[in-house]
Amino acid sequence: MRARNKPWADDFLKEHEQFVTLSAEERKNNWQSVFKRDQPIQLEIGTGKGQFIMGMAEQFSDVNFIGIEVAKSIIISAVQKAVDKKPDNVHFINEDAKDLRLLFADNEIDKIYLNFSDPWPKTRHAKRRLTYKTFLEQYKQVLKENGEIVLKTDNRQLFEYSLVSFSEFGMVLDEVSLDLHELQDPTNIMTEYEEKFSAKGQNIYRCRAHFK
Amino acid sequence: MRARNKPWADDFLKEHEQFVTLSAEERKNNWQSVFKRDQPIQLEIGTGKGQFIMGMAEQFSDVNFIGIEVAKSIIISAVQKAVDKKPDNVHFINEDAKDLRLLFADNEIDKIYLNFSDPWPKTRHAKRRLTYKTFLEQYKQVLKENGEIVLKTDNRQLFEYSLVSFSEFGMVLDEVSLDLHELQDPTNIMTEYEEKFSAKGQNIYRCRAHFK
Repeated sequence: MRARNKPWADDFLKEHEQFVTLSAEERKNNWQSVFKRDQPIQLEIGTGKGQFIMGMAEQFSDVNFIGIEVAKSIIISAVQKAVDKKPDNVHFINEDAKDLRLLFADNEIDKIYLNFSDPWPKTRHAKRRLTYKTFLEQYKQVLKENGEIVLKTDNRQLFEYSLVSFSEFGMVLDEVSLDLHELQDPTNIMTEYEEKFSAKGQNIYRCRAHFK
Repeated sequence: MRARNKPWADDFLKEHEQFVTLSAEERKNNWQSVFKRDQPIQLEIGTGKGQFIMGMAEQFSDVNFIGIEVAKSIIISAVQKAVDKKPDNVHFINEDAKDLRLLFADNEIDKIYLNFSDPWPKTRHAKRRLTYKTFLEQYKQVLKENGEIVLKTDNRQLFEYSLVSFSEFGMVLDEVSLDLHELQDPTNIMTEYEEKFSAKGQNIYRCRAHFK
């Protein structure tokens, strides 16, 4: 999902460097410095307009949240939310997350959220799915020992694929939910996308898995 | 599912010992003797009226199939199918499968099918689910190395539970399907129950997993 390019976006992001990092590699192994408190860092890959991460940050003040989003024209909506609410435990990165090891040191991250990632439905594009084994290798490296991944999607094929991929990689499944909203989990923060598709009666799938 | 007791059932089963074993422990480590050919043995636990196993036996003549069913009044329907069709690669056991290690030697079984097992929905009954860890221990022991379990169910909660239980036990998921019939897999043989519930539009879930 790419919105139209917004020429003022560069200026806007530079003005709000308190909440967004543009050259993230420089911060590798030093991410705590962008937050008020030293506390575990959780990462959302593909943070979109930031509804999920802003909701999480409000709910869990003892966690620092980083959201990565490649599309400048979309991340500005997330940064705007931070500018409005001024949380002290949210930061965004405007980068392509194609190799997290460039951005984060080993063990620097506590947990990774993959929310409604691109399903890349064609088999020949399987390598681009964010749960393909080469991505899992990256996640394992930047995550602390026994680090956890939480996946949410409405795409059945991506979910099926991801469960098998996690398992083949040697990860352990801690939770599988095939109808997340039926659980009425009060800690579940919905993404914009989730809200829209769930309202249409679409099942939302969630899986929590950890590395061994 | 228990049909009404049928007093002639004992006599019927005794008449057809070619297809059904009543005291299975005596055959432990010697199951090939009930079949025409020595070939891998696959096991269905809770074989019901036998539609699945009879269909599998027809499709895979290079496999010997054993179906276990505790309910006498139900297994007679399965045995009747065998009496009618006279397959040389199907055998039934009228026993409670509560400890497979009493019935089978280590490595005697090639694959295990769990079809539409009782979901035991209450948490306090989790130990009775056929995918609870104590059952997985039994399966692992009677299965050959890297032996496989194939689970089919229409019960979402049992399916979610089983994926996590397999994974926690150290098994590897080889396939997860959240809408089996959409795959139109021509090798999928339906159970009686599956036919009925699938016709009502109920999703059928399938998982294949192996021990390490």
